[in-house]
Amino acid sequence: MTALWQRQPVGIVGLGLIGGSLGLDLRARGATVRALVHRQATADRAVERGLVTEVSTDPAVLGDCGLVVLALPLDRLLDPAPALLDALPAAAVITDVGSVKAPVLQAWTRLLGPGRARCFVASHPMAGTAQAGVEAGVAGLFQGRPWVATPAEDTDPSALAAVAELAGAVGADWLTCDAADHDRAVALISHLPVLVSAALLQAADRGGKAMGHAPEPPGRAGEAPGRADAAGPGGRDSAGPELARLVRSLASSGFADTTRVGGGNPELGTLMARCNREALLAALVQYRRALVDLEHLVAGEAWPELQASLAEAQRLRPEFL
Amino acid sequence: MTALWQRQPVGIVGLGLIGGSLGLDLRARGATVRALVHRQATADRAVERGLVTEVSTDPAVLGDCGLVVLALPLDRLLDPAPALLDALPAAAVITDVGSVKAPVLQAWTRLLGPGRARCFVASHPMAGTAQAGVEAGVAGLFQGRPWVATPAEDTDPSALAAVAELAGAVGADWLTCDAADHDRAVALISHLPVLVSAALLQAADRGGKAMGHAPEPPGRAGEAPGRADAAGPGGRDSAGPELARLVRSLASSGFADTTRVGGGNPELGTLMARCNREALLAALVQYRRALVDLEHLVAGEAWPELQASLAEAQRLRPEFL
Repeated sequence: MTALWQRQPVGIVGLGLIGGSLGLDLRARGATVRALVHRQATADRAVERGLVTEVSTDPAVLGDCGLVVLALPLDRLLDPAPALLDALPAAAVITDVGSVKAPVLQAWTRLLGPGRARCFVASHPMAGTAQAGVEAGVAGLFQGRPWVATPAEDTDPSALAAVAELAGAVGADWLTCDAADHDRAVALISHLPVLVSAALLQAADRGGKAMGHAPEPPGRAGEAPGRADAAGPGGRDSAGPELARLVRSLASSGFADTTRVGGGNPELGTLMARCNREALLAALVQYRRALVDLEHLVAGEAWPELQASLAEAQRLRPEFL
Repeated sequence: MTALWQRQPVGIVGLGLIGGSLGLDLRARGATVRALVHRQATADRAVERGLVTEVSTDPAVLGDCGLVVLALPLDRLLDPAPALLDALPAAAVITDVGSVKAPVLQAWTRLLGPGRARCFVASHPMAGTAQAGVEAGVAGLFQGRPWVATPAEDTDPSALAAVAELAGAVGADWLTCDAADHDRAVALISHLPVLVSAALLQAADRGGKAMGHAPEPPGRAGEAPGRADAAGPGGRDSAGPELARLVRSLASSGFADTTRVGGGNPELGTLMARCNREALLAALVQYRRALVDLEHLVAGEAWPELQASLAEAQRLRPEFL
């Protein structure tokens, strides 16, 4: 018995990183891929890049699809165009790729109505790069990455199986869980890190300005001219221009790694926070507790205890990777 | 005029990552390298690896060195063996590679006395890998990396120049700054990230246990068996075993990057915190402020302001890299 994605065309709504990558992989496996996009320029480029079999800005392109993947940003997913809703084939299995699941499940259950919502499978392929847009799609993006589905009580088992087969076809590791659990998990391991990391960038910037010691004499003589000194005294920030330059000169690969997600797309970070606010706030409570505990150990000069706490972190990390 | 490292043998005390890498690079440039190590097994291996011209566990090996690099861990650097002090040639330029500078400068000014301390150059080559020990040294480690010196008021300009030439010989970018500024800068961009990152690992672990919802019914039916469900209900932690497993299954490259330095060597992290405690506490104050500001924006649903703050972080990051 062949899978649904093999028997009927697969519809993809949106050809950004996820939609485009999915199109590439599915076509490579022999699927017919019909895509709906917003702009004609995107449609033209998608054809040039070979992302799809057929693409249009007219929702009618989805007409004969057996399975439709809504590869839209979360905000558009939560508030879809009426024309899109009207164009979804009545018998099609519908899935999404949103990174927060409870609001999507709730919105689409309401939008589709109780009967048709049985064929909606809320899902989240957890794969990505820093790229976006129609140029971003790459082959093999999902290979070995989790593809999480969060079925509701009345989700049709055959609809769920059809999406699992799609995920399997592109090499993803399929798993299912409760939508609220998914959202709590991504709050901890995906959305919290964005804030933790952004705050580090801001602290390094503000600390570089605030922690300088401009009033004191430099207390130096005879040194060779150095990069950090090159701009001389009296730089752009009177509170500590030298330190502000120095932190920028000395930041290393550790700082680069720790700040990568915090320096990412601000629209995306905000959207995640907005759509997963409660779980993110709960994650922040956990985080502040852990950080304050560490701070107390440093303030109290409790070095053996600090070392034990850092050893716990060292032991934990491989469990997550 | 040839540099000091070319005219006389260079002494290296300790052949871990920094000492061993320095030995490799200096030998490749024609220097004579004499090393002092603690154990005979290290000495034997250093010869096998070609790290040095000569190596011994006897401090007398440093006898005719014109420049001695103390490539010791911070704790041993701050409390050096009397036999090492006695063996340092009276006329030699001495430098260190410690990652905190004010305590080193203070300790060695006292240890050497005011006259001889003029030839001590506190310095910090900012290069590293996750490796340690006599196997860790690699060629080219310092290429393009900062090598920071923090001269005191009475540091001999020719001693400083000799260390600058050494740093230049291995391709490092030489810069000088105030010792206290160095320590504040590394607190912000190196020591703070360790705690920020370790706290994230601990929060993901504790949040996975505390934020689960064991009392509620799973509210699911019909889904295909998934990886996160594989262990079934009633796992090892009654507070939320499913979520604890899920956070481990879903952690991605972003989480891996953000937690890398927090999962590092606990002894090293503790030593940094101990030797740079005040600057680290000041950095933590800056960090908590930045994080609490972000948290307030999320709690207050101030989405445009959150996006502006994340955009600031995005704008800041390239300044540090």
